[in-house]
Amino acid sequence: MKFTLTQALALIGASALSGSAEPAKRPAPGARPYGLVIHGGAGVIVRKEMTAQTEAAYRDKLAQARDAGYAVLERGGSATDAVVAAVRVMEDSPLFNAGYGAVLDSDGVCELDAAIMDGRTLGAGAVAGVQTVKNPILLAKAIMERSPHVMLAGPGAERFAKEAGLEIVPNSYFRTERRMRELERARQQERQAPGVGQAADGTPPGEDRKWGTVGCVALDRDGNLAAGTSTGGMTNKKFGRVGDSPIIGAGTYANNATCAVSCTGHGEFFMRGVVGHDISARMEYGALPLAEAAARTLAKLGDAGGTGGLVAIGRDGAVAMPFNTPGMYRALRISTGESLVRLFGDER
Amino acid sequence: MKFTLTQALALIGASALSGSAEPAKRPAPGARPYGLVIHGGAGVIVRKEMTAQTEAAYRDKLAQARDAGYAVLERGGSATDAVVAAVRVMEDSPLFNAGYGAVLDSDGVCELDAAIMDGRTLGAGAVAGVQTVKNPILLAKAIMERSPHVMLAGPGAERFAKEAGLEIVPNSYFRTERRMRELERARQQERQAPGVGQAADGTPPGEDRKWGTVGCVALDRDGNLAAGTSTGGMTNKKFGRVGDSPIIGAGTYANNATCAVSCTGHGEFFMRGVVGHDISARMEYGALPLAEAAARTLAKLGDAGGTGGLVAIGRDGAVAMPFNTPGMYRALRISTGESLVRLFGDER
Repeated sequence: MKFTLTQALALIGASALSGSAEPAKRPAPGARPYGLVIHGGAGVIVRKEMTAQTEAAYRDKLAQARDAGYAVLERGGSATDAVVAAVRVMEDSPLFNAGYGAVLDSDGVCELDAAIMDGRTLGAGAVAGVQTVKNPILLAKAIMERSPHVMLAGPGAERFAKEAGLEIVPNSYFRTERRMRELERARQQERQAPGVGQAADGTPPGEDRKWGTVGCVALDRDGNLAAGTSTGGMTNKKFGRVGDSPIIGAGTYANNATCAVSCTGHGEFFMRGVVGHDISARMEYGALPLAEAAARTLAKLGDAGGTGGLVAIGRDGAVAMPFNTPGMYRALRISTGESLVRLFGDER
Repeated sequence: MKFTLTQALALIGASALSGSAEPAKRPAPGARPYGLVIHGGAGVIVRKEMTAQTEAAYRDKLAQARDAGYAVLERGGSATDAVVAAVRVMEDSPLFNAGYGAVLDSDGVCELDAAIMDGRTLGAGAVAGVQTVKNPILLAKAIMERSPHVMLAGPGAERFAKEAGLEIVPNSYFRTERRMRELERARQQERQAPGVGQAADGTPPGEDRKWGTVGCVALDRDGNLAAGTSTGGMTNKKFGRVGDSPIIGAGTYANNATCAVSCTGHGEFFMRGVVGHDISARMEYGALPLAEAAARTLAKLGDAGGTGGLVAIGRDGAVAMPFNTPGMYRALRISTGESLVRLFGDER
């Protein structure tokens, strides 16, 4: 699944353009807006491959996650807490590749990554490769708030989670029938065409080639920003691969001076592009507005052959949710009245 | 060891200023310069705490590492290969906290991190938490060149290293008497003042509170940039902590459009500051020259309470090696004639 932006646009037609070009939402001058944007992954999310029932399930769960985060903001809670509330709903749903229902690695195990960043303090917490922590986003928050570190990995991170009193579950908790079928299919494809599936370009041969990640960016009533991301990585992944989600500056970044960003897509490209920080830097050093900064960063990623999308919110309440895939699960709610739930690229 | 930049400057006197303000070296116009800069860690590196013999050993090894990398460039080799050659010499020396002679974690084990980035392709490879790979920088390079991934962690990364044919050693290979004494001292301090040592601010209570990391940035005859970093992390570290060294954009970053950067210091601050990419972004979007971009990024890190330093080289051969600690092991050699080996902050 390597192609240039031009090829990608040709592949997906106008839908990606409308996705990429979704206009920034700006609050009325004078108001102090608050709100949030969430995503549940980007990829080949198209109407003709989805039953009405599945579509409704995604819309309902996205709305539920968004509203859980918005409720925190509405009652004066922090952007960080809103991000956790929204991400947690998606981690607990089997629809998304995060927490319960995460994809399986080549050993048939769920390995989870997550990160959170507080734009006010630039504090951050990240976790890579945990197998027994029910809600990785809660572990990321605990690392940020209760450890001197930013990133913990593997069994050490799980020891920290236990000491922090987080809920521990057996790895089988995360495993669903759907993901077991996907792994079986990926293994078959690998046997039939070794070196093709994941080995060639890192693309997981999942049923819809969707990049599974969930994330949220929020702006609270006090004007503080936060971003959080959680994922199970790639189906049939090997060798302890870590993607962009837990990398501060890549898949997850927040800075009160600029914006908060959470990404989803072919993680290797987002890591090399340092996408979250790149958008922030275009605003801070290049004086670009959020929507243009996000569009330029994503265009550069696309030119390099990367696919995916992101959600971002600025300190002024402007939002962006560009993607260069056919679709991206996304939803937002802003105090000035905007509210939407979208799946496909051709939805305005 | 938390203090503001102002406090840090007061603590270390004029030496830090001279360190931070080392002028950019610029080649003569018209020439196509090539060269490299290396570091072997920053921290409380001061004359009065070092015997003449130890000082000479550091100077010799820094010169050897630098010259190993420079020889690659001189014969037309790539910046990437030069970085590997220089870093490898330091990994193989017990003087530095990387490879052989790395610090021990709380379990008495050496856990190694490394990363490399190619500024021409923006390809990158990173590894976190390996215990048996003799030269982690070689593993980072193998990940960049021979896997579809950017970052591998833990036992999975070691499986990849074996399949890639890299040299595997028992963990005891890395362990030295000096590091065992340091761990014992750290444990004693922790028992005497629980919650102080590492727990309070993440500072390892090592003998000289030095941040051990090695790194190299290079510009080759073809005008390509590369950066590499390797470390054993923090003495007595717990919970699978990952620092900034293997984080693309934080401790390691290279981009032919701007510069190559390798950092050393209190990793958590470098991760939150996304330091490598921040310097690059100030050049790309803010049109700053390398030295000023590096100085501003380090000043911001210092204001947040972070300590450490970095080496950087631009596409034009300009270099910067600022630090806000009393000293930083560093050396450089540029085809236009500049050549130096420095340890302390008061050396010009």
